[in-house]
Amino acid sequence: MHLRPCLARLQPLVLGLVFLFLAGIAGGAAADIPKELYEGIGVRSDASPKLLYEALVKRYRDPAQGAGKGKYADLWQPIPFSKYFDPHSFYAPPSTVSEVAGRADCVECHLKETPGWVHQWKQSAHANLGRIRALEPSDVRFYQKAKLEEVERNLRSLGKLGANEALREVGCIDCHVDVNLARKADHRKDLRMPTAEVCAACHLSEFAERESERDTAVWPKGVERTKGRPSHALDYQDNVETGIWAGMPQREIAEGCTACHMNQNKCDTCHTRHSFSLVEARKPEACGTCHSGIDHNNIENYLSSKHGVNYLTLGSSWNWNVPLKDGLTKGGQTAPTCQTCHMEFNGKYGHNVVRKVRWANYPMVPGIAEAVVDSDWSRQRLGAWVKTCTQCHSERFARAYLELMDKATLQGVQKVKEAQAVVQKLYDDGLLPGQKTNRPAPPAPEKDAPMEFFQLMWSKGNNPTAVELEGKVLAENLLPKLFVGVAHVNPGGWTYTESWEQINAGYSRIMDYDTQLRERAAAAKPRSTSSLPERTLLALFAPQRDERDLWAAGFGGAMLLGGAALLWRSRRGRRDV
Amino acid sequence: MHLRPCLARLQPLVLGLVFLFLAGIAGGAAADIPKELYEGIGVRSDASPKLLYEALVKRYRDPAQGAGKGKYADLWQPIPFSKYFDPHSFYAPPSTVSEVAGRADCVECHLKETPGWVHQWKQSAHANLGRIRALEPSDVRFYQKAKLEEVERNLRSLGKLGANEALREVGCIDCHVDVNLARKADHRKDLRMPTAEVCAACHLSEFAERESERDTAVWPKGVERTKGRPSHALDYQDNVETGIWAGMPQREIAEGCTACHMNQNKCDTCHTRHSFSLVEARKPEACGTCHSGIDHNNIENYLSSKHGVNYLTLGSSWNWNVPLKDGLTKGGQTAPTCQTCHMEFNGKYGHNVVRKVRWANYPMVPGIAEAVVDSDWSRQRLGAWVKTCTQCHSERFARAYLELMDKATLQGVQKVKEAQAVVQKLYDDGLLPGQKTNRPAPPAPEKDAPMEFFQLMWSKGNNPTAVELEGKVLAENLLPKLFVGVAHVNPGGWTYTESWEQINAGYSRIMDYDTQLRERAAAAKPRSTSSLPERTLLALFAPQRDERDLWAAGFGGAMLLGGAALLWRSRRGRRDV
Amino acid sequence: MHLRPCLARLQPLVLGLVFLFLAGIAGGAAADIPKELYEGIGVRSDASPKLLYEALVKRYRDPAQGAGKGKYADLWQPIPFSKYFDPHSFYAPPSTVSEVAGRADCVECHLKETPGWVHQWKQSAHANLGRIRALEPSDVRFYQKAKLEEVERNLRSLGKLGANEALREVGCIDCHVDVNLARKADHRKDLRMPTAEVCAACHLSEFAERESERDTAVWPKGVERTKGRPSHALDYQDNVETGIWAGMPQREIAEGCTACHMNQNKCDTCHTRHSFSLVEARKPEACGTCHSGIDHNNIENYLSSKHGVNYLTLGSSWNWNVPLKDGLTKGGQTAPTCQTCHMEFNGKYGHNVVRKVRWANYPMVPGIAEAVVDSDWSRQRLGAWVKTCTQCHSERFARAYLELMDKATLQGVQKVKEAQAVVQKLYDDGLLPGQKTNRPAPPAPEKDAPMEFFQLMWSKGNNPTAVELEGKVLAENLLPKLFVGVAHVNPGGWTYTESWEQINAGYSRIMDYDTQLRERAAAAKPRSTSSLPERTLLALFAPQRDERDLWAAGFGGAMLLGGAALLWRSRRGRRDV
Repeated sequence: MHLRPCLARLQPLVLGLVFLFLAGIAGGAAADIPKELYEGIGVRSDASPKLLYEALVKRYRDPAQGAGKGKYADLWQPIPFSKYFDPHSFYAPPSTVSEVAGRADCVECHLKETPGWVHQWKQSAHANLGRIRALEPSDVRFYQKAKLEEVERNLRSLGKLGANEALREVGCIDCHVDVNLARKADHRKDLRMPTAEVCAACHLSEFAERESERDTAVWPKGVERTKGRPSHALDYQDNVETGIWAGMPQREIAEGCTACHMNQNKCDTCHTRHSFSLVEARKPEACGTCHSGIDHNNIENYLSSKHGVNYLTLGSSWNWNVPLKDGLTKGGQTAPTCQTCHMEFNGKYGHNVVRKVRWANYPMVPGIAEAVVDSDWSRQRLGAWVKTCTQCHSERFARAYLELMDKATLQGVQKVKEAQAVVQKLYDDGLLPGQKTNRPAPPAPEKDAPMEFFQLMWSKGNNPTAVELEGKVLAENLLPKLFVGVAHVNPGGWTYTESWEQINAGYSRIMDYDTQLRERAAAAKPRSTSSLPERTLLALFAPQRDERDLWAAGFGGAMLLGGAALLWRSRRGRRDV
Repeated sequence: MHLRPCLARLQPLVLGLVFLFLAGIAGGAAADIPKELYEGIGVRSDASPKLLYEALVKRYRDPAQGAGKGKYADLWQPIPFSKYFDPHSFYAPPSTVSEVAGRADCVECHLKETPGWVHQWKQSAHANLGRIRALEPSDVRFYQKAKLEEVERNLRSLGKLGANEALREVGCIDCHVDVNLARKADHRKDLRMPTAEVCAACHLSEFAERESERDTAVWPKGVERTKGRPSHALDYQDNVETGIWAGMPQREIAEGCTACHMNQNKCDTCHTRHSFSLVEARKPEACGTCHSGIDHNNIENYLSSKHGVNYLTLGSSWNWNVPLKDGLTKGGQTAPTCQTCHMEFNGKYGHNVVRKVRWANYPMVPGIAEAVVDSDWSRQRLGAWVKTCTQCHSERFARAYLELMDKATLQGVQKVKEAQAVVQKLYDDGLLPGQKTNRPAPPAPEKDAPMEFFQLMWSKGNNPTAVELEGKVLAENLLPKLFVGVAHVNPGGWTYTESWEQINAGYSRIMDYDTQLRERAAAAKPRSTSSLPERTLLALFAPQRDERDLWAAGFGGAMLLGGAALLWRSRRGRRDV
Repeated sequence: MHLRPCLARLQPLVLGLVFLFLAGIAGGAAADIPKELYEGIGVRSDASPKLLYEALVKRYRDPAQGAGKGKYADLWQPIPFSKYFDPHSFYAPPSTVSEVAGRADCVECHLKETPGWVHQWKQSAHANLGRIRALEPSDVRFYQKAKLEEVERNLRSLGKLGANEALREVGCIDCHVDVNLARKADHRKDLRMPTAEVCAACHLSEFAERESERDTAVWPKGVERTKGRPSHALDYQDNVETGIWAGMPQREIAEGCTACHMNQNKCDTCHTRHSFSLVEARKPEACGTCHSGIDHNNIENYLSSKHGVNYLTLGSSWNWNVPLKDGLTKGGQTAPTCQTCHMEFNGKYGHNVVRKVRWANYPMVPGIAEAVVDSDWSRQRLGAWVKTCTQCHSERFARAYLELMDKATLQGVQKVKEAQAVVQKLYDDGLLPGQKTNRPAPPAPEKDAPMEFFQLMWSKGNNPTAVELEGKVLAENLLPKLFVGVAHVNPGGWTYTESWEQINAGYSRIMDYDTQLRERAAAAKPRSTSSLPERTLLALFAPQRDERDLWAAGFGGAMLLGGAALLWRSRRGRRDV
């Protein structure tokens, strides 16, 4: 063989190595870990993977910072399935499986026992690290080589991989016992159900990004929200610290909530075991199991919007192997997905999805409407959204639409507030059906009050009454739907199908109840009053209505929403979801 | 040509033939016809195709065993479109088309007349039997060769195909006149609209599997369900023997029910004419037209679940040409479809979808909750489900989840039962609005009673009242949704969007009605009573409420559900769907 | 080079040119511009593109014929985002962008500024006209060559393209400033937001087809619909001339309606900018953003139907590059899409989607039920539908189903009419809650009356009452759903999930309200009356109920629906959508 051809053959290899090296750095730099995280855990941003990992895991496991059963721990017991929702608290290895097995044994035996998961794994990147190492620079997935090197650097820093050792595969034993384990393991003693910290040993930057939600979900003074919530990072805490969740006797129903509220504990809510497909996690439906339904119909609104329709009709021709940041360019994406907008922040993509949050889905949370209307916090986050939109739209277009979104939401807030005040007055006047005769108290730790969240999940006798439920549904389901509809640009989502028409209808039913309950109460009064002609009697209530109307008319741009706070206050704990 | 190369060329052929032979046997063995079927029709399991076919068809056509118009035949008349829902009863050849045409004429003429169906057929396996014969053993569809041979064996046994004759194609004339017909046919005399028995001449084992639902849908003593129902095999009988279906005057509305309840009569509800695509029938949406909506939202819950989301995001990369049994392995399926779980029984796949049925969608059917909680029948079927789940999950995981499912459903049953008892009491006390002045009787054969199924499809004056509807909807729509939601692992399906929150709301509205109707009744009583202060009056009703609460609290694990039976009994006939 | 091979090489070229020429003619002929259009704008059907274009644009821009703010212009003001919904009325170039840029500058600069839209465009036919010119006759997209030539003929006729000049590309500047512009343009002065007339310069026949909706949406005498509406061509007019739209104070909510009602103004509602993908516009979801939801759930019913399920399961294997007319044949489509049925008329496909309209979604529009039941207009349009259906079904099948559809819809009309009459009587008797004490008037131009459309979008005090809303929802949402369900062959759509069961429930609640409101009114009367036993009192109202029942029973085939007209009349303006 002559030298020149030989060198010519080497050339791509050399270039590849150089590219790989640069990509490796870029790969690390691609992680979008906010400085707030480093401040939050007291670690320098140039700390070793080991230091970062240990600081993160320390906070992650700390019951005082959200791990485990939460502040109502005494009130509830896990069911058998809870071990899969919160393995850290409830999982113990099986006592019935006695095999002591090595790396290859797992695969061999489970290929017969539970073939589905083994075949899923066989398709995964975990089972095919060699495929990643063989990627050419021209491949859109070439970035994964850098990612794999980053994983190996993390493992070396943690002392789990030798200095010159390459990770061969990620098999059953690596996640379910210990990463890169050479010995055999005993099902009854060694088996673990992986939590996010297990994934983090390799995928440290992704874990750090996710955990940074605790540090970046911040709220202006006056907003009744807790720092760090709502977020994926603390969604299990939100769940178990919701009063009625802990207090309701139907534990199997309650665990239905946990079936979504467990991102804090696990990564496979988005990255489904055991193929952990990136393509799946990049598609909008991956978010839809949880981000759907009557109080946060995100996926429905997205899929009905122009953006979603574009995905539904053309998405099969987009290249889902490109990383998120390249979707709209190299990936041929002609519309954004959930991930495109919600995992982006100032042009970078990561696993913190709350940095641009403003309304946070629940416009009746005390203080939030005022904060959105006028605060630096709001303006900064709006600015970040404008950057997101200007990936495809002009700034003028983006700002005009975001203004439409805020104002439509405020119009909904005003309508709901007006209706809720009428229900509150019925309660204050003791006029709700059965209010004085048949209104059992809710289970601890809940305390009785009208239009409380617990009334959606628990009922007995006349607690809640029908009119209270109307008021609660307005605030808890319909108003969030209005916001979500307009935020996702689905016309039917904020006008008729899901929100405004329904909010109007709820308002009308509340007024109907009010009139009838007050008429009946008046009719039941002693002769001296009830002998007055009916219409005169009704007129006694008319003034308050006129006042209400005047007040409503005066709403306008000032948005003095203080009253809503009172109606909402008691559910503070729950709403941080 | 030399001998050796010639033999070498023959080798694959020989191997292919051997394989084909073995596959042929395996193909036959692949059919999953339960022994109960053979017992049910009195035929030995090694009977010839002809004997099996004739016994099956005899039962299939027998009006005493479910064929035709049913026990309310005198009460209803078919509409013109009924001939397509129940061809056996109502179809007659067209009088306006006089062509006498042969095999090729059909295609030629209809290519102009109705090109859509001809093009569909041209894509079908029926029009391309040669493609099946040419399949290589390496092709995942190779199993179809054995299936084709099985078809030919069936036809030979029936005398429709010569001993050495190969089936050339399945064209228009084969299904719409007679299989393998050589002569021409007269539209006005010979044309038939194929029923399932027409398909069965070729696809005998599939028909036998389907018909075996009559024999395997068995219920423990005390469950108010009829053997063989609900099932695809008798779903038309279920339809026409539902009282209000037969009795309601709006026949075109009623036939909307039939549009699903016709699997008994036809196979193209799942295998859409005229391409009869296997890929279509293997996909979950194929079940969705019927298994959807307010009283059995199966497809919605599946598609929202982790399983369904995996299908939606990754399904396009699965190989849909593999038979169901190979889906999770060779097919690359990373999640189950409807078919994966519901067509499987003890590791085999077939067209009987009711062998593992336990709750059967309607947890208020008298006796079913008790049977599920404690019976060998339930334990055996649960065991079969565990086998299904352990294709991908550990047994411990499967059992823990199935326990969650049963308990969540029972929690719903308890809540609904408590609410229904209040409505029943209102009816017993004669306190429903208009109960004594404006409550017309339903059309025959229905008889009036509160919270009946007919009230969902018929109304006049104050029958039903609003509060009755609330009670009926709880049992008929919301509780089934709770069960379906939890059974398909869709969190929103059993907690807030579709069921528990809605069940609570329905309960609350019922209690509100109860309080108001009783207050009003008390107020309307003679002076001596109504002159008492209002609150004293209300207290008269309080004791009964306290008792109710106590009773509810005492529910727990014992599940004394007898009361539900009384409320449900009258709709027995209809529920066997 | 020898002559013969050279000729041989030319042969395909010559054949191609001949084909191209013929296809060019066919391409022109393929346009389906109804003669009614030419009559409507006073232009001969063989007029030059320039004459046709100018006549169309003259009408298109005419405020007296539907352009702009409409008859309630004084009552409402645009919001900032309105400029994107109605650019003709509200768009002005941005004042903040000072660049003066040429054809290439746009792309270069916006590749950094707003990369998403540039990459979309780069994938588009607009950016790749050369790809169209290079299409071979064997390619299913070959028809696009003829389309491109047609576009060039149009531009030449308009003087925008030289006689021998070929269109090189359609870039930013062509649509946003002027087509085929050579000079640079100033953002602050020259920028335009394209309306349909901008698209029409090239796509004249498509625009003409769409505009012909004004001429072919005709109604028989007695139907309270305006000529030309509802249609895409005048849907913005429908929007802004709906009283409550113009009158409601919540402008950002109102503009949610406009988000769909802007097809009149723009083409990118179906052909999403900036890829303008034909594949997207051919898929059913493209219609779904607007044709969905509580008062016209078209996409939901389609996707749940057998047709839609076939699309969902097999659509990925259909060839979406074929033009609509070839879908069922060359395209391998095994079921129709929205486009297959609604863009077809007598075998040709075009952008007029209203030529076969009969019920037009709202069966309560006065006169429509009578017209559908018996008129030449109805019979002709039914005949056109039969032609559509017989692409795949027999005529007997098609007629039987369409009869089912009409009758089921009429059964719904009858039920709704009966319920609405009860609400109307309550209003006439002054018995609605708060009717005389707390019923504010709606905002101008609306006038108060019961069961008005404005009550779905506006509410104050006891306007509307709960029972009125029930009556309005029956007519406005549930009855349209019944029709849409049966029209799209989705069983759950017309029987239980979406309509008949819900219509029954609404009916029952109305009767419940009626009984209770009348009982209460009776109880509130002077002693002399209220001292009568309760049942005697109720009996006073019984006769009217009996009469109602008799009348209902006498409905049958005659369909004397005049009464419905009275209830519906006041919303005439709005319904022409």
